[in-house]
This record gives sequence, structure tokens and C-alpha cells, in this order.
Amino acid sequence: MESSKVYNILRINGEEKREEEDLVVIEYPFTIFIDEKEILTLLCSPKSLKGLTLGFLYSEGFIKSKSDVKSIDIDENLGTGHVELNKRQYFLEDFQGKRTITSGCGKGTIFYNVIDSLKTERIKEALKIDMENIKDSMRDFNKRSDLFLKTGGVHSCGLYKDSEIIIFEEDIGRHNALDKILGIALEKDIELKDKTILTSGRISSEILLKIAKRGISTVVSRSAPTSLAVDMARELNINLIGFVRGEKLNIYNGSFPSL
Amino acid sequence: MESSKVYNILRINGEEKREEEDLVVIEYPFTIFIDEKEILTLLCSPKSLKGLTLGFLYSEGFIKSKSDVKSIDIDENLGTGHVELNKRQYFLEDFQGKRTITSGCGKGTIFYNVIDSLKTERIKEALKIDMENIKDSMRDFNKRSDLFLKTGGVHSCGLYKDSEIIIFEEDIGRHNALDKILGIALEKDIELKDKTILTSGRISSEILLKIAKRGISTVVSRSAPTSLAVDMARELNINLIGFVRGEKLNIYNGSFPSL
Repeated sequence: MESSKVYNILRINGEEKREEEDLVVIEYPFTIFIDEKEILTLLCSPKSLKGLTLGFLYSEGFIKSKSDVKSIDIDENLGTGHVELNKRQYFLEDFQGKRTITSGCGKGTIFYNVIDSLKTERIKEALKIDMENIKDSMRDFNKRSDLFLKTGGVHSCGLYKDSEIIIFEEDIGRHNALDKILGIALEKDIELKDKTILTSGRISSEILLKIAKRGISTVVSRSAPTSLAVDMARELNINLIGFVRGEKLNIYNGSFPSL
Repeated sequence: MESSKVYNILRINGEEKREEEDLVVIEYPFTIFIDEKEILTLLCSPKSLKGLTLGFLYSEGFIKSKSDVKSIDIDENLGTGHVELNKRQYFLEDFQGKRTITSGCGKGTIFYNVIDSLKTERIKEALKIDMENIKDSMRDFNKRSDLFLKTGGVHSCGLYKDSEIIIFEEDIGRHNALDKILGIALEKDIELKDKTILTSGRISSEILLKIAKRGISTVVSRSAPTSLAVDMARELNINLIGFVRGEKLNIYNGSFPSL
């Protein structure tokens, strides 16, 4: 299975606008079952899935050696990995009560559900993309990331109205930085329909869904989106703009080509 | 609470070696309880924790509006957020049976436990750090990341013996890329004690633990480590080397200053 996919996007460079093909990295949902029990779904690149399954089983403590595994059956088309174990290191039921930790970066939205995307409403009226606002906000955004400059270890996220900053947050996790913004906006009753989210990190399906759930119509990154994020943005009518660097930016979804 | 912390590290630039202070970003475990039930622990930056809690509750579907929340009690020292809800959007018990998805980036290791770090054995004899091998491997590693060059959206991970590549993997998630390597090594019965892991991504506590569990003594990144990763590396006797760029690199743990 391919690890990237071609999308038609609008590439902007200063005054120049061209509809072009662009390679976007595939975000592939892969569900692991152990002895017929569904364990979790990883969002990953669709390569080396057997290695991923084995590595996951070991890292998470399901197995202590290769010989604990009876069989692994990968179905690339269904996106499933069925594992049979000879010996379980502990009962699957034990996991649920444990203190669970999710990644600083991914945060892992362990309750996140594919069905969420179906429950999420399509944006009725998206903001009109304003190139100058986007470039100005990104310039402002880049200047603010103080902790990154000091440590090189964080993601930042900003809520903008036009090119004016409303909230700025940093976190070791890109999901956390966004949740902080969204939580503060909730606390302060900030209207979100006319606002734009800027992020330093990649736009994956989870980032896109968090934004969509709050009715925000525009998300801007200096980095790349994944295929699933582009698909969802198109489905949910969200402006998705990536690789904003100086005078350059890519519009993955928005009202192009008639922009 | 501060978002970064000073560590003494060994900074290398060509032939020059200096023990210096370096700012490392804090990785802070923050546990959210809802109506006294422990929900999960986020690894985050210790700022805007109330915003993070509210944003998390909303993003994960625990609440639909601010008025669903009765109170939020944050204890920065304990690293806890106790939430009381007026109205639950659904029963907490319902989550457990759902199809769960974790982040491509974070993968979220939903079964990962702090206790894992206590169960993980200290490396008895770490590899001796060889600067030339590290710089050579990183040069090789940088050349290999084909998918990144095409899409800008992936992390890569490599297993090296001295400066020779053994396995190379890419994934939208840095945890997945590492699990693929570790899984393939398990499948092929590759001895890991004399190997080094290279990663394009940040080194967080989860990355460090996965490596430690397999008895790998050296991890190298072109990016930054977090505070918790440095602390664990020192605890578990793992060589931790970051910001490897050309002739420059930072040794966060290893046999310095007498290197």
C-alpha cells in the first residue's frame, strides 16, 4: 500500500496561484485485535504492519518474547491485525482500571471514535480565506514561540481573529496546545465561528476533528496535513491551509479554484 | 510552574567539548479525575491546566457546554485536576468498550503505566559513546528519509550498529516508527544490546521507555529530549544524545564529564 497520495491543491506564492498536484502522507487507521478482542486503533503509515503489531505488543507489555505469539494475521484492505497469543502476560481486562498515560505529543485521545467524525456537523458557512491575514498571523505566530526557541521541544497553537492574536499556548503536545486554547475559549465564552486556529504542528485527523467540533472553519499550519485530515476538511467544509512560510502557502481545502 | 528546567549537559562541537547548562522542556504528568474516577494522565507542559482540562473534556465528548461543569480543582503540585460535572454526556463506563483511536504521532500508549518505569531494568553496561559513529549514522539517517522529503509529514527511525543501518522505518507517528523497528527486530531475532536507535523526533519519556524495555543503551535524535526522558535516561543508564546536526551534538546522559 502506498504511503502517500496525490491531491489537487492550490499553491500560492506571493501573487501567483496555481492549482497543482501535491503528495500528502497517508494516515491509515489500523485496528489490533488480540484473541478476537479489539484492543485499539492506531493511526499510522500503512507499511510494516506486522512489525508495528509485534512492536506494539511488546512495548505495551502484552508479550515478553516472540514465542508468546501464536499468529498474526494482517489484512491491509480491512486495516486489521488479528493476533493470537500462546500466553498472555496479563489479562486484557486489567488494562482498563490502570492509570493510563497518553503521549505528550499525541495525547492519544483514547476515547476518540471514528463515529465522532460522522456526528460532527459540516460547517455551514466557512470564513472566506484571506491570504494577507493568514500570512500576517503566521508571522506574528512565529515570533511568539518563546519556549520553542529556548528548548526546541514544544508545539504552539494560536487563536486569531483576522491577524490579531486572541489566545496563544505552548505545550510538548500539539493536541494539548490546541485543547488549552479551546478550553480557555470555552471558559471565557469566546465566540469561535469568526476565528482561525494556527498550529506549529502537523494537521492530523484528530486535530481537525477537535476544531470541527467547535465550529471553527479555518485551520492553518506551517507544517503538513495528513490524507485523513484533508479528506475530513473537504467533508466538513473546513479551510485547511498548510506549509505557510513567508509568501508561500498551500490550500488543501477552501473555495478554490474560483478563489 | 516553570515550563523548562536547567540540566548540565556535555555540548560537542567538532573537537570542542564543554560541560554546560542547557534548558530542557518540562514533561509533566497531569491526571484528570471526573467525579472521583481517574480518567487518564496527560503528559503535558505545566501551564494553563484548567484550560487543558476543559478543552480535553469538550474534545473527548465529556461535556457539551461550560455549564455541564460544576467545578474544576487543579493541584499543580500533585499534578491532578479533579472535575465535578453537573451532567455527564454519557457514562464513563461506556468509553471502555468503544473502538479507541490514538494519535498517529503520540500513539498514546494507552496501557502505558508510570509503574513501567519502575519495572524496567537499569542497563548494566551501556555502549561507549563514539562521536564519529553518531555523526556518521545521523548523516546516513538524514539521507534516507524519502517520504519526509516528498510529503513533509512523517517521522523516521533507524536501528544502527556502529554507523551501519540495520532497519529503517517511517511513520506519521514517532512512536509507531519506533515500534515498527522494535517489532521487526523481535521477529528477526536481532540482538539489540550493541545497537543504537536514531530518531527524527523528540525524545519523550515514552520513547525512552520503549527503548529501555528492549535493553538498548543508546538513543540519538536530531531533535530535543524532554525533562522526563533525561531523568529516566539517567536513572536507567541510557546514553541520550540530542540535537545531532553536522559536527554539533548534545550529550544529556552518558559517561561525561570524563568522556
